[in-house]
Order: sequence, then structure tokens, then C-alpha cells
Amino acid sequence: MIFSVTILGCSSAIPTPVRSLSAQVVNVHEKLYLIDCGEGTQMQLRKFNIKAQRINHIFISHLHGDHYYGLIGLLTSSHLLGRTNPLHIYAEAKLKDIINIQFSASDTHLGYPLNFHDIDPTVHEKIFEDEKVTVYTIPLKHRLLTTGFLFKEKAGERNIRKDFVEKEHIPYSEFSKIKAGGDYISDSGLVFKNRDITIDPPEPRSFAYCSDTAYFEPIIPKIKHVDLLYHEATFMDDKKDKASENFHSTTIEAATIAKKAEVKRLILGHYSTRYDDLQLLLKEARSVFPNTELGEDGKVFEIEL
Amino acid sequence: MIFSVTILGCSSAIPTPVRSLSAQVVNVHEKLYLIDCGEGTQMQLRKFNIKAQRINHIFISHLHGDHYYGLIGLLTSSHLLGRTNPLHIYAEAKLKDIINIQFSASDTHLGYPLNFHDIDPTVHEKIFEDEKVTVYTIPLKHRLLTTGFLFKEKAGERNIRKDFVEKEHIPYSEFSKIKAGGDYISDSGLVFKNRDITIDPPEPRSFAYCSDTAYFEPIIPKIKHVDLLYHEATFMDDKKDKASENFHSTTIEAATIAKKAEVKRLILGHYSTRYDDLQLLLKEARSVFPNTELGEDGKVFEIEL
Repeated sequence: MIFSVTILGCSSAIPTPVRSLSAQVVNVHEKLYLIDCGEGTQMQLRKFNIKAQRINHIFISHLHGDHYYGLIGLLTSSHLLGRTNPLHIYAEAKLKDIINIQFSASDTHLGYPLNFHDIDPTVHEKIFEDEKVTVYTIPLKHRLLTTGFLFKEKAGERNIRKDFVEKEHIPYSEFSKIKAGGDYISDSGLVFKNRDITIDPPEPRSFAYCSDTAYFEPIIPKIKHVDLLYHEATFMDDKKDKASENFHSTTIEAATIAKKAEVKRLILGHYSTRYDDLQLLLKEARSVFPNTELGEDGKVFEIEL
Repeated sequence: MIFSVTILGCSSAIPTPVRSLSAQVVNVHEKLYLIDCGEGTQMQLRKFNIKAQRINHIFISHLHGDHYYGLIGLLTSSHLLGRTNPLHIYAEAKLKDIINIQFSASDTHLGYPLNFHDIDPTVHEKIFEDEKVTVYTIPLKHRLLTTGFLFKEKAGERNIRKDFVEKEHIPYSEFSKIKAGGDYISDSGLVFKNRDITIDPPEPRSFAYCSDTAYFEPIIPKIKHVDLLYHEATFMDDKKDKASENFHSTTIEAATIAKKAEVKRLILGHYSTRYDDLQLLLKEARSVFPNTELGEDGKVFEIEL
């Protein structure tokens, strides 16, 4: 089952001709979750053939405009396109007022339920779960209250060994009990222990989104060993002081967090508009954490089982 | 001196891959005025090489999102890019609250003065003038209170006949008096009447923006004889009832207004996303008003002297 992240935009503050503003789609078992929604996100979704109507949950990291100015347009277009499915937004409480004042001004009454879930960016806690994934906040260090998001896949069911199914002619009616961890008792009363007749399910996968933030070691235990980490890298190392002043990170800092958290793979993003050649940023980050890749608009990062 | 209109977007409600949302730049003698500002307008300005920092006046027709959702991003980017020049916004009063709540949420303090000028979309009145142009509201008929905008170039100074300047050796110090309409009295006391020694200045030019609106004849006297009329044509003639229900116009209706107002040239725009082939819309409109052209993203319409 798929677990992937599609970058819709990775420019910091201002869009460039090749980089849109922060937004990405997490696909967990064909359910789509949107993280951040800078201006133009609805156009980026269309450009990369992702149906906005498939997104039911939107997570907003903080209220700097480059992370949410596209939300009102996405919500409006979804309405105009006939959406009826509920849509859930996880963000600071103020966002609700920002959205509602605009719908009030245009006398818009959405054709679908829009549910706001207030999040507290100062604590690390579970804010969402369904049958496949759990989402946690990750308090970051930024000028505004800001949270990252940790997506943790739930452990799947145990797999019954095929050779055992064939040899013992296990009836289908017993499958769900065994997959859930139960033993199997044959017609003759013989007990087969679950550990002997099943295989561990695949290791659950995880993705952490950390933008915007200064270098901030308290996130390390929260993102420890994740399969994929998106960490902002607004600046190169020579702009370390500027990064710190503005509560942003450098390539080296992003890579250092990745290394200390022993994550499997790092994606950079949220680049300052001053950078045309992202290869220079990649090279710097790889000098600390080799398994680094560049986030770029339209790129899809799959986490293999 | 230039008088032109650049279409930045002409899609109705939802952007398409080739048509952005409502926004256009009026250039009067190299001063730029922005009308409407749908999502993505800052990207469109960049795409068509128009510097946002040259725009000092923004006119918003109404508070449907496709006409203003891009404003907050444009204002924010202008700030981040170091703007210090005052910026003036002409719109319904509510827009000020919509903008301010967002700047408050992000603790943004603009580096330039942002001046809101409340307009009353129910009356036809002068809302702006400088030395080159006067801007008037044009009440339209839409679901929300909506106004069009009429840009009227001011009459230039009279031109002194060159042959007269040469023959009579008119001193430069007399020029401004004569250009303003004064007679010339020679050293010998001979009076030259202004009408004999000057030529009329070029006819002042005018542009009217009418979007969004149902077919609405009361606008005709207000836009009579304009050089260029942008009139919305959301639907083709077979969707006349739908247009009326939604307070929009058809191609035929836009062209009928142009014909009855005896304008020189009509630009269509604000097309429903259902239309891929705009030539069909053009053909319909031309059947009523031949001097019709299609508004399309990036097209520049110059009004010749």
C-alpha cells in the first residue's frame, strides 16, 4: 500500500516562476492529506493531476501567509465544483475567523460541512487518526507559533503463512482472527500458535514535516528514525546568522537534525527566492547527511514498505 | 503617451490551466493601476514582466473571491520585497477587515502605508483622480454589490503650431500660458488669438471595466462612446437563462451593451470554465458587435491616440 509525499510548492515567502509556495500532499493507502496551502495550491493540484475533492483533511502549520493564503480559494473552488463530503481543517483557532469573514463577505454558504479543529502548536500530541494513520503535532521554533506534523502509519495485520493455509486447509472464516493475532485450533483440536503460522506485518512507515523552524534540537526525539523527513532549508550555510535571526534553518542545520534523529531520508525545501541553483544547497546538506534529496514542485517521494 | 490594458486573468470563479482569475493592469501614461486581484495575480504580474512595485492604486469590483483572493499575497510580497511607497486600495469597506485580520494573525507590520478608500458600489461617482486620469464607479447588477470602473484620460494641453513658433520667435517662457489656452501678445502689441496659433490636443481616451454583471442597460449612458469596453461574457447565448439566474452576461448581451453604448472596441472576458474554444464566444459576440476581441491572459490592448 502506498505511502508517499508530493511536493506542490517549496518556495519560501514569495513564489518564483519554478517554485510555488508551501503545500504538499501525503498519500497514505490512497487517502490524501494536505499539509499547508500557500497561494496557488489549487492550481498546483490541478497541474499535478491530484483531485482536490479526494482531500478530506488539511493541516496548516502556522499563519504566515505563504503557508495558507491558498486555502480560501481551494475551499471556494471545492464548493463551486459541487463538493458535498465533509472537509476537516487542523490549524490554530484564528484561521477559522479568517476563513469565515471572507465567506461572510461574499455571502457564501458551502455545500459541504467544513470542520475546524483547533490545534495547540506548543504541545506534541495526537491530533488525528483513522484506521491507517495517526498524525501528531511537532512544536517548532519560529517567529509565530508553528507546528510540524508527524504522520505515523498504523501497524498492519499479521500475514498468515501461505504454506500453512494450503497444508492445513484453513477456512476463510478463520482468517481475520489469525491476522489479528489469534491462534488456530484445527478440527482435531490441535493448537497452532499464532507466531508459528504468521509473519510480522511490514514495519509501519512514518513521515515528518518540519517547516518553518530555526535549528531546534527538541524535535529530535519526536522524529527519531522516521522514514522520511521534510525539513526546511531556507538558507545556505553562509547565511546562518540570517537564518537564526528569522527563525529559519540552513542546509547544514536541516541535515544535522536528520543525522541526529537518525532518519532514513531527508527532503529539503522552503528555499529562499535568492537561490536559482538548488544543487548547491543539496551538496551542502549531503556533506552532513548523504541521504538528502531536493524537494521540488511536482516531485513524489515514495516510502517503500 | 500610452493608454493600455493588460489582461492578467479572465476565468470565471475557478482558474483553468490557461486562464487565471480576474485581474488587469491599466497603464495610463506609464502609471499602472490594477483592477481586481484574483488568486495568483502576483504570479501573473511576474509572468508578464509587470513590476508590482509600480502599482500604487488597486480597484476591487466586489468581494467574490475570484476577484480579490490574490490581494493579500500581493500586499505581503510587496512588503517582503521592500516596498515603501504608499499603496491605495479602492473597495468596499469590508475588505479592510479581511486584510487586517490576516496581517494581525501573522503579526505583520507593513513597511509601506496601506490606505483603504471605501467605495459605494451603488452610485456612479468619481473615486480617484491624478493629473492624467479620473476613475469613476459604474454600479453593476450582480448577486453581491458590485461596481465597474471607468478610466477617463484627462484632456492634454493645447499644442502650439510649430510654424507659428518659428515665424514669430515665441519665447519659451510663453509656452505654458499658450498651451493652457491663453492668447499671445507680441512685443509690438499684436494679439494672436489662441485658436489661431494652437491645435486641439488629442481626444482624451477612456476604458470601462464591467465585471461581474447581468445584462444591465443603466450602465449604457455611463460608458457611452468609450474607446475600450471590457464586459464580462461568462456564458454563450444558449446559457442565457443560467446567466440571468447567476447575474452574469452572455456574449450576445455583452455585445448588445457595446453596440447600444456605441463604444469603439469590446473585449470579452470572465469566461465560464466550461469553454475551451473561445472562438465560438467571439463569433457570437461579433454577430452583434463586430469590433469585439477576446480577452486572454497576457494580451495587451492599446488605445491609440
